Parts: sequence; C-alpha cells; structure tokens
Amino acid sequence: MSPDRLARVALSKVFEPGDLRLPALLAHYGAADIVSRLVAGNDPRLHEASADVGSRLASVNAAADLERAAQAGIRFVTPEDDEWPAGLDDLDHIEPVQEMVGAPVGLWVRGPARLGRLTQSVAVVGARDATTYGCNVAAQIAGELVVADRPVVSGAAFGIDRAAHLGALSMRGTTVAVLACGVDVAYPVAHGSMLDDIARTGAVVSELPPGQTVKRQRFLSRNRLIAAFSEGVVVVEAAIRSGALNTATWADRLSRPVMAVPGPITSAQSQGAHELIRRGGLLVTRGAEVLEASAPMGSHAVADRRAEVLPRDRLTRRAKQVIDALEVDRAMTLEEVSAAAAVSPLDVAAVLQRAEVRGLVAQDCGRWVLTSLALRT
Amino acid sequence: MSPDRLARVALSKVFEPGDLRLPALLAHYGAADIVSRLVAGNDPRLHEASADVGSRLASVNAAADLERAAQAGIRFVTPEDDEWPAGLDDLDHIEPVQEMVGAPVGLWVRGPARLGRLTQSVAVVGARDATTYGCNVAAQIAGELVVADRPVVSGAAFGIDRAAHLGALSMRGTTVAVLACGVDVAYPVAHGSMLDDIARTGAVVSELPPGQTVKRQRFLSRNRLIAAFSEGVVVVEAAIRSGALNTATWADRLSRPVMAVPGPITSAQSQGAHELIRRGGLLVTRGAEVLEASAPMGSHAVADRRAEVLPRDRLTRRAKQVIDALEVDRAMTLEEVSAAAAVSPLDVAAVLQRAEVRGLVAQDCGRWVLTSLALRT
Repeated sequence: MSPDRLARVALSKVFEPGDLRLPALLAHYGAADIVSRLVAGNDPRLHEASADVGSRLASVNAAADLERAAQAGIRFVTPEDDEWPAGLDDLDHIEPVQEMVGAPVGLWVRGPARLGRLTQSVAVVGARDATTYGCNVAAQIAGELVVADRPVVSGAAFGIDRAAHLGALSMRGTTVAVLACGVDVAYPVAHGSMLDDIARTGAVVSELPPGQTVKRQRFLSRNRLIAAFSEGVVVVEAAIRSGALNTATWADRLSRPVMAVPGPITSAQSQGAHELIRRGGLLVTRGAEVLEASAPMGSHAVADRRAEVLPRDRLTRRAKQVIDALEVDRAMTLEEVSAAAAVSPLDVAAVLQRAEVRGLVAQDCGRWVLTSLALRT
Repeated sequence: MSPDRLARVALSKVFEPGDLRLPALLAHYGAADIVSRLVAGNDPRLHEASADVGSRLASVNAAADLERAAQAGIRFVTPEDDEWPAGLDDLDHIEPVQEMVGAPVGLWVRGPARLGRLTQSVAVVGARDATTYGCNVAAQIAGELVVADRPVVSGAAFGIDRAAHLGALSMRGTTVAVLACGVDVAYPVAHGSMLDDIARTGAVVSELPPGQTVKRQRFLSRNRLIAAFSEGVVVVEAAIRSGALNTATWADRLSRPVMAVPGPITSAQSQGAHELIRRGGLLVTRGAEVLEASAPMGSHAVADRRAEVLPRDRLTRRAKQVIDALEVDRAMTLEEVSAAAAVSPLDVAAVLQRAEVRGLVAQDCGRWVLTSLALRT
C-alpha cells in the first residue's frame, strides 16, 4: 500500500471537502508529508490546520479503514490510479466558490464503473421539489444521453436527480451518483434501493469516507465534483435559491457548458433555469442539443428544428404573387389575375403555365382556378 | 393636396407591399415622377413595372380615394407628415427578406393615436393556435408594457396577437394593430369589434388601401411593418413554421431586439420561441425584462431574480462548518463539535460565542445546541 494512498485516506477522514488550504499544501508537500507535519504540529506554517485536525489525524488507522471499506465493496481511488478522472484536477486551477476549492484528496467508490472511462459524462441536476413535467424531461434527456453512450452524473436527491438516474437506468445506461455523505449511507433514506441499483452497474461516489453523514456545506462541496466529473451540466428546473444553480456556478468556473431546460414562466421551479439562460446558459430541449453542446466541436452537429420545404416555397416571390391573386371559389381571366397580382399579363401567363405543369392551377374555359394541391400548401 | 401625397396614394393602390423595385425608384425619381413615367410607359428602365401596373395606375383617382377614406375616418400618412414614424425608413436600408423590402409608400390609419408619438412601442406577436398559457402570458406582458407607457403593436390575429391587444386595452393603454388588408376590413371577421375598440383609442394601420383583402404575401410584408414600428419584438409561442418567426427575422434584420417567452418543451407552440432563444434571442419572463431589453441602455435596469440574504449567508465558511457540526437533537461538548467540524477547539469556541450573541446557538449545561432560529435559516 503506497504511503500517498494511506495519507490521502487519513486526510479524507479529517478535513471537510473543499478545504481552501489543501490544494497548496498537497502541491507543496505531498500527502504523506502533510500528515506527518500536521500530527507533529511543529510546522508554524501549518499551525491553524494542525490545531483543527492534528489530534484526530494521529488516531486514524488508514490501512484498517481501507480493509473495512474493501469488505463492504468500496474502493478508494487516488490520482495514482488509472481510473482517476483527469477532469477533477481542473478544480485545483480555479477561483474558489463560497470559500471552497480543490480536487478531492481521493474518491470512495462503490460500483463497477471505472471512473476514468466515464469520459464525456453529462450532469443532469435540478430541483428537489420538481414538477411532474421536470421529472419527465430529466428522465427523457438522461435516457437520450446514455443511448448515445454518455454516462449521466447526478446527486441522487429527490426530484430531478432521481429522475435523471432512473432515466439512465431504464435505458440500461451508466449513471454515477455523487453523494454528500459516505457511499454506504443511504441519503435520502428512501433512495437506498436506487443507490444499490446504481452501484450494481454504475458507481456511487463520494470524497467523504464511509459512514459520514450529510451536512449542509457538504452538498455545496459535492456539487463541485458533479460539475468537475462532467463535460457539461444540464439544469432541469431550479428555484432561484437552489443547489442546482450552485452546480451551474461550479460548471461555469470550470469552463464546462451550462445548459438549462425552459418551462412555463408561471412555474417557480423553472425560474432558476430561466435566469441561467438569461445569464448566458444554453437553452436545451432534448438530448441531441445537450450532446452538441457538451461534445468535442462538430462531433454532434444538430440540425435546427425547421419546417419541411413545401412546393410553394420553391416559387419566386413574383410567382407567389400571381398564385395568391387567384381566388379560391371563382375562375378568373388572365386580365383579372394580372390586376389583382400587380404583375403584367405576359408574366402572369408565363407563371400560370409553369404552375399548371406542377398541378397548382388549372384552366376552366380559358379562366384560371387553384387546384386542391395549391390550397394544401 | 401635395402631388407627392396623391402619387403615393396611387402607388399604394397598384403595387403589392414590399415590392423590391420601389425603394430605388422612390429615391431616384420621387413618387409623382414615378407615377407619370409608369403611366406613360416610355421609360425603358421602368419597362417591367410599367407593364405590371401602368394601365391600372392611369385609372386611379387619388383625390377621390382620399376623400372617400376621410369620410370613413381614415387618413393617409406619408413621410411629409409630422406623425410619420422615423423607424419605418430603416426598411430602406436593409437586405430583403423573402424578396421584400422597403418602407411603405404611405400608411392608411384609422384611430386617434398619432403614429409619430408611438416611439418605444414594443411588438408582442405569436401563434394563432396559441395555448391558454401563451394567451395569459401575452396579455400579462402587454399590460405591463402599456402601464410603463410603451404602446403595444401586434397583428390582430387569433391567439397571441389578440391577447396582446386585449391585455393592452384592459390596462387602458395604447395599442396598434397593423393589418394585412385595408383598415376598414375586419380580418379575421370575428375580430371586428376588437379592431373598432383599438381604433377608438389607438390605431389600426395598413399600407394597403381601404377595401383590400388579405393575401398570403401580405402577411409577410405586414410583418416587416410590425418589426419596423417597434423598439423590440417579443414572441410568445410560435410553431417552427410561423409568421411570428418571420416578424423576428425582420426585427433581427432591422437590429431591433428579438425576445421570446419560454414554455414547456413538450408544447409544440413553444418550439419556435425556444429555437429563437437558442439562436441568440433573449429569454424574457416579464414586462420589466422586455423594457430593459427594448429601452435606451440603462433606463430600465432590472434586478436579477435573487433569493433574499439569510442570517446564515453572512457567516464565513469556517463558521458555517462549526454550526453545521452541531446536531439537531443532541447537545454537544466543545470537543465533539471541534472533531465534527474539523476546526480547532479554540476557533470553535470563538465561533460559538459569536453565534450565541446572534441567537443561532445556546448553551445547555456547558454543551451546545442549535436554536430554532438556526434551524429556520
């Protein structure tokens, strides 16, 4: 067992996630050296951190913790492992959000999915008190994403998060739940069996050691991992004050695309999504649009929604003017059409002859009428 | 009666609106000269136009038309009138849309509103087959606009247009209906009394002479006037193939802000609005946001929707960590709080004492508990 790994286990047990002091310390000393210095408590540069966690750190038995975790089917992933997701290191190079920053010291993982292979995953997050509309949309988009081989990351909360995980599972896709507690803790309790389902095919992940319970700050530090894990964040319903907007802030800070699904402006649950779009987030309505925004440039170009081209669309404006001049229920002479269309009789005749070939108009005793084909288009 | 005015009456009677040839002709010859040359038919540069409209032009009696219109309470407004809206001239300086372009040769107007005073009007347009949601939103936004002294322009069609006019009228505001037929023609027939209501306080406007009926092309040329009349266009519900998107195209070409109201992604009626936002249109959810986007810079700054600041928000992250470490249903010793918070006992004591003053925590036999105030925030 490498000293770095054991030291990271110890650090994950005593520091709160996102501690502002850790990235610089890790870069300067390395994990094993930090632990020794914090326990010794004699490095004046580490005075505050040592007072905070030194005594607890001294009593950690990291090897025993790893052993106990392994028995519960939980592994501890660090930067020295192949499956360490490179995107997490971006967290060491951004400005803090709400006084938190930094890659996790390690990840506790339950489930067969290798984290490093979860490249191009997309986060689908949103309101706990979501509407039926929001949940349907989240499940639909999550399903479309996993069908395109893009794992879906979310936070296993009530509402949108749950719908996103279930949408991915229902299409037999890979989904990852990032928790604000230990990966062996069911939070919320009602989601215990869903978390087990996720752990059977995907992964349940946390930077907190097994057994740890949720705290308010931990939801915010957890959100930074959801953003860092993903190539883009989709917000489906969010109130103005919501964790989903916090996740979007992390995504923005990390230069991940922020997307949001619109809803009725009369729905409080969509206010946060609309505010995100107003501030520059991308409006998305379906999986293909999410793929386009969160994939390498050009690999998922989406056709705009456009109407089909009708026969009439191919006419010149002058020809349309002639066709429009024909009345629906009365055959007209060439001269009548010319006057109504403001087009010379010569040109009217030319247009009508071409339109007759296409079946748009017909002659009736030298007068002209629209056909049913013209009326349909 | 000026020769220019009479010539413009005649031109409005024989040319279809938006004729590509007119802007250059008017700039080069002036209206009266064009009429003489088209009637004479001997200017080779006017050969095609002369063949199109020359003979009908010869039979126009413009003075009699004006007289008859005046008797019906209809006036003809040209660039020589004070009330000519300057924004219309922008139409002479843009690329054509669907082979149409140019300011109207004149406007037929029914109603007391002086068009020149309708500065800063806002267009509210959208689907004919609108939903109840869309109609409610259109009426609400139109009402908010007229309360802020911004006249509402629309096209008097079924659905969103009607809701916008009625929303403006219900708040005793000025509204302008721009028609694709003569201002004395009720189209749709069912909107006859609404058009009369609009003409009583606002204005019913068309570039087509009295008596003219709608044609498909005329809806498209009419849309360019709605856009040119306004400081911004709000699209409330629009299918992918819809006149409202055509109006938005004109607004974009004219450098007027294009705004759209989102709706459920499951609603076909909102697809066009969502597509507009995806292409760069501004998402708006209320009148204040429309005012901000369509008014001179800074005159209508809108506060983002943000949540109120709670007492907890003012705590440092370190203090939050201490407060979060306290359990809801159990009093804890200083040492227990320190271990759970990963903050030194000295700093925990300092945080708890400050929090006690604010009423967030209380002491119970030397142990610490959260107060109900802390739980509320």
